[in-house]
Amino acid sequence: MVRGCRRHQPATGSLKIAEVTRGSPTLEEVARLAGVSRATASRAINGGSRVSARAQRAVEDAVRRLGYTPNTAARSLVTRRTDSVALIVPEPDEHVFSDPFFARTLHVVTNVLSERDLQVVLLIARPGDDKQRVLRYLRGRHIDGAIVVSHHRDDGLSDRLAALELPSTFIGRPWTCTDQLSYVSTDNFDGANKAARLLIERGCRRIGTIAGPADMTVGRDRLEGWRQALTGAGLPTDAVVHGDFTEAGGADACETLLQAHPDLDGLVVASDLMASGAIRVLTARGRRVPDDIAVTGYDDLGIAERTDPPLTTLRNPISEMAEQAALLLIEQLDGDDISPRHAVFTPTLIRRRSA
Amino acid sequence: MVRGCRRHQPATGSLKIAEVTRGSPTLEEVARLAGVSRATASRAINGGSRVSARAQRAVEDAVRRLGYTPNTAARSLVTRRTDSVALIVPEPDEHVFSDPFFARTLHVVTNVLSERDLQVVLLIARPGDDKQRVLRYLRGRHIDGAIVVSHHRDDGLSDRLAALELPSTFIGRPWTCTDQLSYVSTDNFDGANKAARLLIERGCRRIGTIAGPADMTVGRDRLEGWRQALTGAGLPTDAVVHGDFTEAGGADACETLLQAHPDLDGLVVASDLMASGAIRVLTARGRRVPDDIAVTGYDDLGIAERTDPPLTTLRNPISEMAEQAALLLIEQLDGDDISPRHAVFTPTLIRRRSA
Repeated sequence: MVRGCRRHQPATGSLKIAEVTRGSPTLEEVARLAGVSRATASRAINGGSRVSARAQRAVEDAVRRLGYTPNTAARSLVTRRTDSVALIVPEPDEHVFSDPFFARTLHVVTNVLSERDLQVVLLIARPGDDKQRVLRYLRGRHIDGAIVVSHHRDDGLSDRLAALELPSTFIGRPWTCTDQLSYVSTDNFDGANKAARLLIERGCRRIGTIAGPADMTVGRDRLEGWRQALTGAGLPTDAVVHGDFTEAGGADACETLLQAHPDLDGLVVASDLMASGAIRVLTARGRRVPDDIAVTGYDDLGIAERTDPPLTTLRNPISEMAEQAALLLIEQLDGDDISPRHAVFTPTLIRRRSA
Repeated sequence: MVRGCRRHQPATGSLKIAEVTRGSPTLEEVARLAGVSRATASRAINGGSRVSARAQRAVEDAVRRLGYTPNTAARSLVTRRTDSVALIVPEPDEHVFSDPFFARTLHVVTNVLSERDLQVVLLIARPGDDKQRVLRYLRGRHIDGAIVVSHHRDDGLSDRLAALELPSTFIGRPWTCTDQLSYVSTDNFDGANKAARLLIERGCRRIGTIAGPADMTVGRDRLEGWRQALTGAGLPTDAVVHGDFTEAGGADACETLLQAHPDLDGLVVASDLMASGAIRVLTARGRRVPDDIAVTGYDDLGIAERTDPPLTTLRNPISEMAEQAALLLIEQLDGDDISPRHAVFTPTLIRRRSA
């Protein structure tokens, strides 16, 4: 499917501006018709102060009668370029600031887009927020494009961005419209599958999982990778609790799992932050990691090295994904290649002491 | 000084839209003149896909000849409301994500502005970034207003926002144009002065300071509060090192201070994060806190309770400041009170074990 990127071809864009500006009424004509000075007309049009209500009305009247469009507005009307891009994170702001995944993503995305002189703005769409507000912002074209990270089913961003035809890239496979949207992702099934198979090879026979949120593709894919590894080995797959990718959520999920399945000897956790919370609970309950229960994490963004014991985990190439997402967006903005593109990275198993 | 807020009076704004729309050429007229369907005209004007180059040109030509302005653009041209507000942080993104001050500020600002259905976008203007890009973004009026936090002299934001007459509030006194800009702050002189006097009362006679950045008013004011307390007590004021408000910066500054002044028995630190780094260094060098050297911090945002020993510090009412900043901005947007407003909070000394 071809997406609506024609307006983002710089050459054509410049041409359009020239066409619109040429022969258009000038600011001087507006001022003359309104009977005010050029400076007053400019202030009135730019929403400035120090303009009497009468002069403001006269200028607006002249603008309407002449069909005058200031250059910036003409540019916005026709090319709609703002030279800014939103990084949209539909998460509570506490999560955004506590999970290094977001800091890293913003850092890399900003680096890549800065080189193209694009201003990045971070838009945190909190779950309790009015969804119409974000949609209105996107519709308002205050940005040239968007990168979405940590997308959930109910934020509806995949449907909306596909419908708006705003240049966009998702980090993580979108919930819907995957054939219309560009995204970068890692093979989350493969990562969790590797982790579960490692535990099976270690001799674990009662392996639980703290999965990611059930309303995210990353949560579902990692859960499925774990499940299929266990099924393949003839092991039970009933020890599942979903967490919210926070440390506290991991601790809570671990408590719940241990209560329901006190015989667990292996635990596949869908993020290092949650694994860090789980290890705290296991240690507090006297379970030795990995001797009593082997634990794996996911991400490898620094936290995995600092848990006690250090975490065996899957390395998610987050910098590479963020860079690729920014490059895919730039391609759309440039209009060189406007078909949806998908890039899927392979996670790498990193062995430390927890499994 | 009266600032340019007329465009933000909602009632007047609606009236203006009505004036502009009434009697303006319609989309149907544009389509008829261009010889295309209404749907095609709409797609061309909205920058959509599935429009031939020829139709696009015809529509643009008709738009220009008729002086047609779509409703959203008419609204933008006259009222320029975007219903979004930027929180601008001129800091490296690593600082923004590691200092809880920013997470708290964003959280509170978002809460207050969300109630008014305003979308907050976070704009991190990194020191190495092209200043023109941020200025262009502000000039482009992609936002209705801005809140600036952690302003430095060289980011030039106070000059720019005063010149642009964009509704704005600073958290922390701006470097310039204080009579033209609204801001909320705490009495930083008073806070550091209280901390230094506490150390003097404890019997400290060789008191150093890890000051904030010299290019921020907060850095200068806290330094001056410390200096005047020492001068008043007849104590030397030569043990000064500036830090960058990070933990690592505090540790480095502490090393430097100890090397130059090994006889220090008191240390006034301009933030809890820096104090946490300083205490690590002092402990590593065998200095007991507070017995050998008493230490004070600044902020009281959770870190102060977790250092060893817990920090005596100044409580900065950050939530209240952020809330007040958002309310001052809303007042400007509403146009009820458009004169610059200043709110200065008083910091409270919180005694713990470090001093």
